[in-house]
Amino acid sequence: MEPGAGQGSGPGSGLGRWGPVSCVLTGASRGFGRSLARLLAPRFGEGSVLLLLARSAAPLAELAAELRGSAAGLRVECVAADLGCEQGLRQATAALREVLPAGPPGRLLLVNNAGSLGDISKSFLDLTDPDEINSYFAFNITSALCLTSTALQAFGKRPGSSRTVVNISSLCALKPFKSWALYCSGKASRDMMFQVLALEEPDIRVLNYAPGPLDTDMQLLARTKTGDPEMRQHFQSMQENRQLIDCTVSAQKLVNLLEEDTFPSGAHVDFYDI
Amino acid sequence: MEPGAGQGSGPGSGLGRWGPVSCVLTGASRGFGRSLARLLAPRFGEGSVLLLLARSAAPLAELAAELRGSAAGLRVECVAADLGCEQGLRQATAALREVLPAGPPGRLLLVNNAGSLGDISKSFLDLTDPDEINSYFAFNITSALCLTSTALQAFGKRPGSSRTVVNISSLCALKPFKSWALYCSGKASRDMMFQVLALEEPDIRVLNYAPGPLDTDMQLLARTKTGDPEMRQHFQSMQENRQLIDCTVSAQKLVNLLEEDTFPSGAHVDFYDI
Repeated sequence: MEPGAGQGSGPGSGLGRWGPVSCVLTGASRGFGRSLARLLAPRFGEGSVLLLLARSAAPLAELAAELRGSAAGLRVECVAADLGCEQGLRQATAALREVLPAGPPGRLLLVNNAGSLGDISKSFLDLTDPDEINSYFAFNITSALCLTSTALQAFGKRPGSSRTVVNISSLCALKPFKSWALYCSGKASRDMMFQVLALEEPDIRVLNYAPGPLDTDMQLLARTKTGDPEMRQHFQSMQENRQLIDCTVSAQKLVNLLEEDTFPSGAHVDFYDI
Repeated sequence: MEPGAGQGSGPGSGLGRWGPVSCVLTGASRGFGRSLARLLAPRFGEGSVLLLLARSAAPLAELAAELRGSAAGLRVECVAADLGCEQGLRQATAALREVLPAGPPGRLLLVNNAGSLGDISKSFLDLTDPDEINSYFAFNITSALCLTSTALQAFGKRPGSSRTVVNISSLCALKPFKSWALYCSGKASRDMMFQVLALEEPDIRVLNYAPGPLDTDMQLLARTKTGDPEMRQHFQSMQENRQLIDCTVSAQKLVNLLEEDTFPSGAHVDFYDI
């Protein structure tokens, strides 16, 4: 997306300068998702639609109310749904099929941000329950694939449109970590899936963005619940040494990447790379 | 595993030279799994147990009968089960819990070979059905994780024992291919999962072995059903130019790797690398 493009109110202000956008963001109610929503909304021009998904209805509704005030003529829709269960995912895909065909045709932005750590108190050898593992992958892999394919189908291939799909990835997609078998394999799977999308669809911009160690509830879990003591200590030190990254700082880097729009499609780009 | 170790009948013969082994092999009834079983069985010493898993009961029983004759005092057990469904996976893990604690204590070898391509006639954008995707990952990711953790639990940590876990991987774990979103992301996920195991359990030998383009039913599917015409043509050319690898040739390389036992644990080793 070109910086300064659209119906903006001058360089620097950001207000509406991306022009009308159809945007879908999962895991929007808190942490990185919420920060990203707050940065994106003012950039969307008149007539944009922003579809926010998360499990918790109340914080999602609060965020939506806040965002409606931040951009002129921005339609904000909420879907409170658990993407890890069949019903929730069907609810989410139904919303995409309803909202996207009617949204602004010029620009689609889908951000697959929702994700979970899994039970990091367990080691690989403790992961013997198929239901637990299937549930983990249903949420962390299947829902990202289904939402993306459904959103791209619902938006359609429109002449002159730009379509961007972001996968919120992690260093864990590239590097194994003790006690994090589910998280690492889920993130590796997602990165690869989106690489395939980039290869299949050269006119879709695909980005695997690793946002860095964010100061979120997930990091709180990491430093208190991780089964491996060394890993737990590592995360504790990161917090003590103030190495955790503010969500807004990382979300801003992602927004910059999207505005510069020079990443090779399908690339894995880490917060620390840029 | 040291070449020539065990109760063998001299170098070169292979007969029984690995000593007593507790071995589990999935996807054993045909293709690479069957070839591997045929190469392994004669290397197992008196008192070894070989547990073969596959969906199809008849070819599995035939193979078991053949192998029983190939090694003295080798116990061959079969479990005909679909690892992609809950019942089949429970049947398989129950068999592991029954057979492994009573098997020879010195050496465990688990080969996660079972896998499927998924519906390669579809592109990423066609993959909108959660049930189809969940089933794919249940078979190709969850079952490999559950069988491995269950086998390692059932075998236990015995003083002086050696434990080796092999994941049959693919170039697709590292590189995206058009029309193969499920296969690529499943293989990437498995590679990463076994890297985590290698990190968590330094006394378990873990190998991600990519067997190369094998002359199997899977390659037949690849060259006839792959949705992307360029990819389909690529696989057709590989067959026409006799570039497909005989299963026994690739299985022999894996056996050599296991005998030399010098790979870094968790490594991805490709047929063409060795």
